[in-house]
Amino acid sequence: MFTINENYQKLPGSYLFSTIAKKVNDYSAKNPEKKIIRLGIGDVTQPLVPAILEALHKAVDEMGNAKTFHGYAPDLGYDFLRNAIVEHDYRIRGCDITADEIFVSDGAKSDSANIQEIFGSNNRIAVCDPVYPVYVDSNVMAGRTGTYDAGTERWSDVIYMPCTMENDFVPELPKERPDMIYLCLPNNPTGTTITKPQLQAWVDYANQVGAVIIYDAAYEAYISEENVPHSIYECEGAKTCAIELKSFSKNAGFTGVRLGYTVVPKELKCGDVSLNGMWARRHGTKFNGAPYIQQRAGEAVYSAEGRAQLKEQIGYYMRNAAAIKKGLQEAGYTVFGGVNAPYIWLKTPGKMTSWEFFDDLLERANVVGTPGSGFGPSGEGYFRLTAFGSHENTIAALKRIQSL
Amino acid sequence: MFTINENYQKLPGSYLFSTIAKKVNDYSAKNPEKKIIRLGIGDVTQPLVPAILEALHKAVDEMGNAKTFHGYAPDLGYDFLRNAIVEHDYRIRGCDITADEIFVSDGAKSDSANIQEIFGSNNRIAVCDPVYPVYVDSNVMAGRTGTYDAGTERWSDVIYMPCTMENDFVPELPKERPDMIYLCLPNNPTGTTITKPQLQAWVDYANQVGAVIIYDAAYEAYISEENVPHSIYECEGAKTCAIELKSFSKNAGFTGVRLGYTVVPKELKCGDVSLNGMWARRHGTKFNGAPYIQQRAGEAVYSAEGRAQLKEQIGYYMRNAAAIKKGLQEAGYTVFGGVNAPYIWLKTPGKMTSWEFFDDLLERANVVGTPGSGFGPSGEGYFRLTAFGSHENTIAALKRIQSL
Repeated sequence: MFTINENYQKLPGSYLFSTIAKKVNDYSAKNPEKKIIRLGIGDVTQPLVPAILEALHKAVDEMGNAKTFHGYAPDLGYDFLRNAIVEHDYRIRGCDITADEIFVSDGAKSDSANIQEIFGSNNRIAVCDPVYPVYVDSNVMAGRTGTYDAGTERWSDVIYMPCTMENDFVPELPKERPDMIYLCLPNNPTGTTITKPQLQAWVDYANQVGAVIIYDAAYEAYISEENVPHSIYECEGAKTCAIELKSFSKNAGFTGVRLGYTVVPKELKCGDVSLNGMWARRHGTKFNGAPYIQQRAGEAVYSAEGRAQLKEQIGYYMRNAAAIKKGLQEAGYTVFGGVNAPYIWLKTPGKMTSWEFFDDLLERANVVGTPGSGFGPSGEGYFRLTAFGSHENTIAALKRIQSL
Repeated sequence: MFTINENYQKLPGSYLFSTIAKKVNDYSAKNPEKKIIRLGIGDVTQPLVPAILEALHKAVDEMGNAKTFHGYAPDLGYDFLRNAIVEHDYRIRGCDITADEIFVSDGAKSDSANIQEIFGSNNRIAVCDPVYPVYVDSNVMAGRTGTYDAGTERWSDVIYMPCTMENDFVPELPKERPDMIYLCLPNNPTGTTITKPQLQAWVDYANQVGAVIIYDAAYEAYISEENVPHSIYECEGAKTCAIELKSFSKNAGFTGVRLGYTVVPKELKCGDVSLNGMWARRHGTKFNGAPYIQQRAGEAVYSAEGRAQLKEQIGYYMRNAAAIKKGLQEAGYTVFGGVNAPYIWLKTPGKMTSWEFFDDLLERANVVGTPGSGFGPSGEGYFRLTAFGSHENTIAALKRIQSL
């Protein structure tokens, strides 16, 4: 008789966003006249920019002609895209990354969940707390996290690095030694980030203890302050200890288009074994390349027109972020993030829990956000709002919250 | 110090198609005047049909308008596509499959490699020999295959089910009891398949011994004979023992578009645990939905226009298959497949090995095929040609082979 992967049974209850969807649907069913504004899930709302649409249409036309038709893509991505990535995301920042260290994929969520597969099952992981839930959940499925304590909401074998207002949301080097360190910077959900010297300290630490850093830079395009690194490879020595995950979802509105990439430097090794070669083998065996038309759209992200149009789109969302931050501060809330990321992280008022505030906001303001506790135990007492709504909805939601 | 997944070190040498590419490149470099015809890799060459192009353009336009923009897709796929799949691939064949048993993905290669993740690491796998290499390789990475014997080219813990001319390419029930049985029918690479009563015997066996069948039906659209099942769910009892993988790559030319789906029936359980729920959890954690525009293209595959145009496209490839088969038979080769699949499987002449025939064909006819031994030890002495070339190239290649 076949058996199942028993680790799946350890995953607690339902996924955060499913629970939110259920609560919102229940409320809507009981109150059909209420117009709900959703600032919960981190999904974009603005249409693709003209340069990207043009690239997509052109690529579709190519697929309609035998002379320009494209079948299987190279497993690791087309050179035209990998070269554009190298030039615009790395070379101009002085990072020495080459095209054969870039692996194009169908998005950073898949990569961030799959990357653990090339590591040993005995590796100890460390995560910021709170953080994007996929890092922990994918390691639960792989059996690396030990047992779950429903009381503390913690896994026995995971090293949690609290990021709260008490430490200015800067993760501290852990007391126990980790093997794999997940850093999401700018952070989802807190919207906060760290300086280049602070990240350099992490790189030095990882090289010293022999840990690998899995660096999720999905929100890099939203960085507005100087001295905040856009890539971990801006730090000395990162190529011997860090993998970087990048998404086109947030900088180019590709949540429904699906495209991302991962950087695995050739210098990153375990003994003699190159992780670059391992990830290439994983890509070649368990993935079949990102679609041609999506890769052409990705190339357009880096064209002069694309960059100008996307700068404007990011500006649109960041004006939302600034408006939410200012408006909530004026209403007396303690607010973080929103400067280098499209997320606003607020302290729930009084002694309200994250879910109590969620219910209150849904019922009294008809606004949906995300309870901080859904991102990790140290997220309790916080709440996330996204700047990805339309400007009209964002302002309307803000007014409702202010009038509570 | 972090460790790696040591199973990767067990994978022998390079991937089949990389070796072929290297040999062809070397030959081309030395003989730049020779025009090589590639009938090796199973990649399509004909452009997307008009109904699909129209759907792609329309979906791209929708992505350019805030009112019709689509962000994150539902993890499991849009209802419009899942409903079309249910209607056209199952209901019309009398198979009782519902939309919530369909999981849309970025292609059958990913699914066929990922599906093993929901099973226990102690499960014993059985594969047809020869077969598509991804089933074994993905299980090697997961540590289910034991040790590799380079002499016999076999893994110690894999049950091989030889499919050769001696048994008419019909896999026999194994003597050792497997937990997971991979069946690819019509088979890649042999192009052969089995009848409905023969498949029913496999379903009965799986239910009896408590094994799960992972049924890869990627080439289903090429079936031309009666009494050959298009889906395993045409067999009684398959819903309690079988998962079915489907691709849009070969029936609609989507190798570079990327779209597929997997069926996990709700009745398929291990004790009380529903595999449908497990796969949903895997999809929700490690995947972020197939792109909106691809799913609209998938919907067009099932429209009246799409179906008519694709019937014609499949006819085009199958005329190639018939021409290769007839031409090779006339030249004295022993040939299989090509009736219910776009692959021709031929016995190498005399006592030539698969790779000897590969080299001979490359050097004397400048035609590239795939050595049968690359698909498993019982593929030795066979050779695969695909019908996916253009008609002109196919006929030209055939003439060259005939004149050897």
